[in-house]
Amino acid sequence: MKVQIKAIAQESELAKAIDHKINNKTKPLGSLGALECVAKKIALIQNSLSPTFQNPTLLIFAGDHGAAIQKSGISPFPSEVTYQMVLNFLRGGAAINVFSEQNQLGLKVIDAGVNFDFSPMALEKENPCFINAKIAKGTKNYLHEDAMSAQELEKALTHGAIIVDTQGDSNVIGFGEMGIGNSSSASLIFSTLADLSLEECVGAGAGHTSEGITKKIEILKQVKSRYTSPAALSSPEKVMCAFGGFEIAMMAGAMLRTAEVGKTILVDGFITSAAILWASKISPHVLDYAIFTHQSNERAHALMLEHLKAKPLLNLNLRLGEGSGVAVSYPIVLASINFLNKMASFSEAQVSKKV
Amino acid sequence: MKVQIKAIAQESELAKAIDHKINNKTKPLGSLGALECVAKKIALIQNSLSPTFQNPTLLIFAGDHGAAIQKSGISPFPSEVTYQMVLNFLRGGAAINVFSEQNQLGLKVIDAGVNFDFSPMALEKENPCFINAKIAKGTKNYLHEDAMSAQELEKALTHGAIIVDTQGDSNVIGFGEMGIGNSSSASLIFSTLADLSLEECVGAGAGHTSEGITKKIEILKQVKSRYTSPAALSSPEKVMCAFGGFEIAMMAGAMLRTAEVGKTILVDGFITSAAILWASKISPHVLDYAIFTHQSNERAHALMLEHLKAKPLLNLNLRLGEGSGVAVSYPIVLASINFLNKMASFSEAQVSKKV
Repeated sequence: MKVQIKAIAQESELAKAIDHKINNKTKPLGSLGALECVAKKIALIQNSLSPTFQNPTLLIFAGDHGAAIQKSGISPFPSEVTYQMVLNFLRGGAAINVFSEQNQLGLKVIDAGVNFDFSPMALEKENPCFINAKIAKGTKNYLHEDAMSAQELEKALTHGAIIVDTQGDSNVIGFGEMGIGNSSSASLIFSTLADLSLEECVGAGAGHTSEGITKKIEILKQVKSRYTSPAALSSPEKVMCAFGGFEIAMMAGAMLRTAEVGKTILVDGFITSAAILWASKISPHVLDYAIFTHQSNERAHALMLEHLKAKPLLNLNLRLGEGSGVAVSYPIVLASINFLNKMASFSEAQVSKKV
Repeated sequence: MKVQIKAIAQESELAKAIDHKINNKTKPLGSLGALECVAKKIALIQNSLSPTFQNPTLLIFAGDHGAAIQKSGISPFPSEVTYQMVLNFLRGGAAINVFSEQNQLGLKVIDAGVNFDFSPMALEKENPCFINAKIAKGTKNYLHEDAMSAQELEKALTHGAIIVDTQGDSNVIGFGEMGIGNSSSASLIFSTLADLSLEECVGAGAGHTSEGITKKIEILKQVKSRYTSPAALSSPEKVMCAFGGFEIAMMAGAMLRTAEVGKTILVDGFITSAAILWASKISPHVLDYAIFTHQSNERAHALMLEHLKAKPLLNLNLRLGEGSGVAVSYPIVLASINFLNKMASFSEAQVSKKV
């Protein structure tokens, strides 16, 4: 996949003009804290002093993992939960439905590689929120072989880009995921790309006990031990083929395309962050377009955010995935551009400045 | 002011039933983090497994401070900014207007004691958002005498209660304030009620430099040094009379009444927290009804929240006041009751539980 992402200059005439606009609003200097940083970032992304959001969209990529399907012990939930939760999303019963509806985010659920046949019968009716982009019925079990082939990876990345291109005039896209076993996949990717130990990169996922986490680390160490030759994991593509999930790869392709077309990316938790970490190895400037909406309670997420030099907006101890952090934080992101567009300046409101 | 606030039992049959309802939603156990705590708190306040919010309201109390009017150096802004910002609120140009409008909070601006005559001419038109409850045109200068009399305090508390009683069916009330000099007042109240040094309790307010903060501490030490006899500050009432602002006192009266009638209190930043700290000395169970929406960037707020054993929802480095933290966080508070009411349970959605 070839991408050309335009770097965003942080020191430009536009940047100065944005600072000037923010600093002349009727408020003490800097008193809107993180909202000011977010407003400036979005204004720079949109190359505008008055950025707006159109048709905000949340894409949830779902996929199964061979190691979870074969009950290796990487997740405390059975892999059937992936398709069951996709059906729950499509029927409107999940947390992400509640939060997206509340905050008026358009929800799309993408089958990137779920081990289930979402036939019209299973879906009960044509569902405009459902996108079939299935690469295969789950990845292969990385305990024994690469999770996906180079062709499958390329296909997943391309599908991700196409999905972004079909979101109409939406100019802000949030990302979420569902996939039993995918915190293991994210930990393997993070550990390899950031050159950190698995102990530092593995957490409870959907709910391991500390005993379960220890076992998860052992299993993932076995997985990594299969790749000892210097060439084995020498490119981001090889890392994704080795450990990836289809949902993570497709999400990364979608993020790269979102940045390429100059739109704002809203990043959710640990797995979504692993996708953009991987994408940044393909094209670092993808991060210029990303807002990290929250720090999740998955213990390695703090370290991953630090590695990405990202400052998350919220820390509510969420660890649900599904894009729930994106949806919950969306009104705060929106508040940042609303104050930039709608607040009066000192001179407009005839308010005295600091003496 | 007499109040009777019902304590909320944290270990009750209802509390167990709420936990059961939360834990059977289609999500890993505990994975909605802080949202689960907030949902439980509101359900307990409303004594219901299905709490709802009606007519959410934000009350902004404004008042002037004698020490600021007399340019003692406690604030870097001239005291005229208080009335100028009240006019800005009433014309819709302030941050709080933008955030309240976005999140559909009904805004009321209360003149608790502003040093300005809000005549119909000054207001340009009858403004249904404006409530005249002026006690006086600013407090007296606490560098020389008590800020308010016992009668003025009683009047402010009573007015606060009446304002709550006139908010119709609103069952969730956010609190904010405006008053040049009121971070000094809040620091003096905090320092006295919590028995902490002024160095620990004073911050930049609306924008002091570190030199300005040092001077502010010196001035406030002079103020406190006027009260050396054991009886001088022996009751919360005496502390409010000595250092208070009318907006802080009236807000405290309104908070006590909100709790008394079993409604949810949304607390903003440093000054609003000082008001509920003071209210908790009158009736400790007011805190059972309070959600602390954010930790402000005013440096002593973290310590005050710790003293109150409060866990704030957000930390966005806001330090604007006006109830801005309440308004920005409101969708997150709303998300907590929405998931409790609307998410499917495991059995409803036919999703497998943890193995």
